[in-house]
Amino acid sequence: MTIDYVHGYSELEARRLGDQANALAALLHEGTAYPAGSRVLEVGCGIGAQTAHLVAGSPGARIVAVDVNEESLAQARSRVAATSPGAAVEWLCGDLFDLPFPESSFDHLFVCFVLEHLRDPQRALVELRRFLRPGGTVTAIEGDHGSALFHPDSAAARAAIDCQVQLQSTAGGDALIGRKLQPLLADAGYAGITVQPRPVYADQNRPELVEDFTRNTFIAMIESIGADALAAGLTTPDAWRRGTADLHRTTGAGGTFHYAFFKATAVNPLKAPGV
Amino acid sequence: MTIDYVHGYSELEARRLGDQANALAALLHEGTAYPAGSRVLEVGCGIGAQTAHLVAGSPGARIVAVDVNEESLAQARSRVAATSPGAAVEWLCGDLFDLPFPESSFDHLFVCFVLEHLRDPQRALVELRRFLRPGGTVTAIEGDHGSALFHPDSAAARAAIDCQVQLQSTAGGDALIGRKLQPLLADAGYAGITVQPRPVYADQNRPELVEDFTRNTFIAMIESIGADALAAGLTTPDAWRRGTADLHRTTGAGGTFHYAFFKATAVNPLKAPGV
Repeated sequence: MTIDYVHGYSELEARRLGDQANALAALLHEGTAYPAGSRVLEVGCGIGAQTAHLVAGSPGARIVAVDVNEESLAQARSRVAATSPGAAVEWLCGDLFDLPFPESSFDHLFVCFVLEHLRDPQRALVELRRFLRPGGTVTAIEGDHGSALFHPDSAAARAAIDCQVQLQSTAGGDALIGRKLQPLLADAGYAGITVQPRPVYADQNRPELVEDFTRNTFIAMIESIGADALAAGLTTPDAWRRGTADLHRTTGAGGTFHYAFFKATAVNPLKAPGV
Repeated sequence: MTIDYVHGYSELEARRLGDQANALAALLHEGTAYPAGSRVLEVGCGIGAQTAHLVAGSPGARIVAVDVNEESLAQARSRVAATSPGAAVEWLCGDLFDLPFPESSFDHLFVCFVLEHLRDPQRALVELRRFLRPGGTVTAIEGDHGSALFHPDSAAARAAIDCQVQLQSTAGGDALIGRKLQPLLADAGYAGITVQPRPVYADQNRPELVEDFTRNTFIAMIESIGADALAAGLTTPDAWRRGTADLHRTTGAGGTFHYAFFKATAVNPLKAPGV
């Protein structure tokens, strides 16, 4: 299965993902640290934005990072080489529905901003569970565009965000997946599921976060799909200009921006359910 | 000014506010503890749902709790007498725009779920600042219905929530005020403003929270305005039934519910701005 990746693979997008990972690293990775020697599988590592933080947070873990895209993987490799020289990450180009690992060959599974792009995220979680030893854990992190909430509020800005939701949906993904992690994991046979919202909130008193998250992560992501949204007839040039201008107003004095990520952890049960 | 209080004063409503305070106490009050001997003014204490937790969290503080409604105040008094016998709370029935205190007579100001009901929350914050000594702090906590996010998603459920937003707006209030705390406090002359989202997330793995928050706080609040929403022509009996039924589906197996409160703290500057 080829993933129809809504965000594209441009250099701008690579920078956006890098900014995002730096601004959000503490927020997203807090609580994730794997013991030395444990075998960790990261699927959909992309350009290694999260891999770099995994390596930093779990220096002794044996991380295998997989992505379907060769170019992204090359960037991931250089990123981690730069941030953690000598880190023993094993890189693999492959489709997450067709991975070459034996059953139960990992202690932990890490999946961040990947399920949102899949046509069948539940099947992916089922497939990946086979590679996890009984008692091993999964960590899944996703956003949910329904959580975007800002001041000044603006129907035009909300419509621009909705264009992204619709495009991602057309591509087979789901930009509202954060709220669904619990049922997805439960239906895929995991146990001990815990989901936590991890909100980001930025106003003028946190200028770096306004810059890193509101402007360079969220608004940049929305702006990057402008041409596609116009081509798909989801917006007009005027509406798009108004919507993105209104999003930028939330970065000014008196503006505020809130977004929630959802972080789930769960366990591969010792016995298969019902056995 | 008489507050046109959208939630009403029924006994059911009093129980709802009590449930809410218990389920959310840890979440909302974390980080709020006033030193022994400090003078704390709580305005809009209502039935004392938060007062009880203030007293518990700051046993040595000298708390003055004010509400405009005599009956609520009587309930607040019995609630605190029951939860913290012997607590030295001073109760005052009065309008927050016409309070009898000398200037600078308090060290701390606590305002929870009050600004959302005011026609001019900024003026309230300006007026109340006079009672705060220079260097004293304000803590303001509010919800924001725009943060309600749930699975299964439902346009009917979102429309039911929007009825509450519209009714509250018609009554002069603002159910989307959480995102505005930073500009409100800044424009009212406060400094050192910090706003934190305090999210609640409940799914079947946290059954007490599903019960206490999703069902007995949030859905109960929406259901309590059904008759008013119908009378105002904001919904139809069918749409209302569908919307509230869909809200209840979020409390079942595989359902999830997210809501964000916003907690702000700020300081009354030592010098008036511009002086």
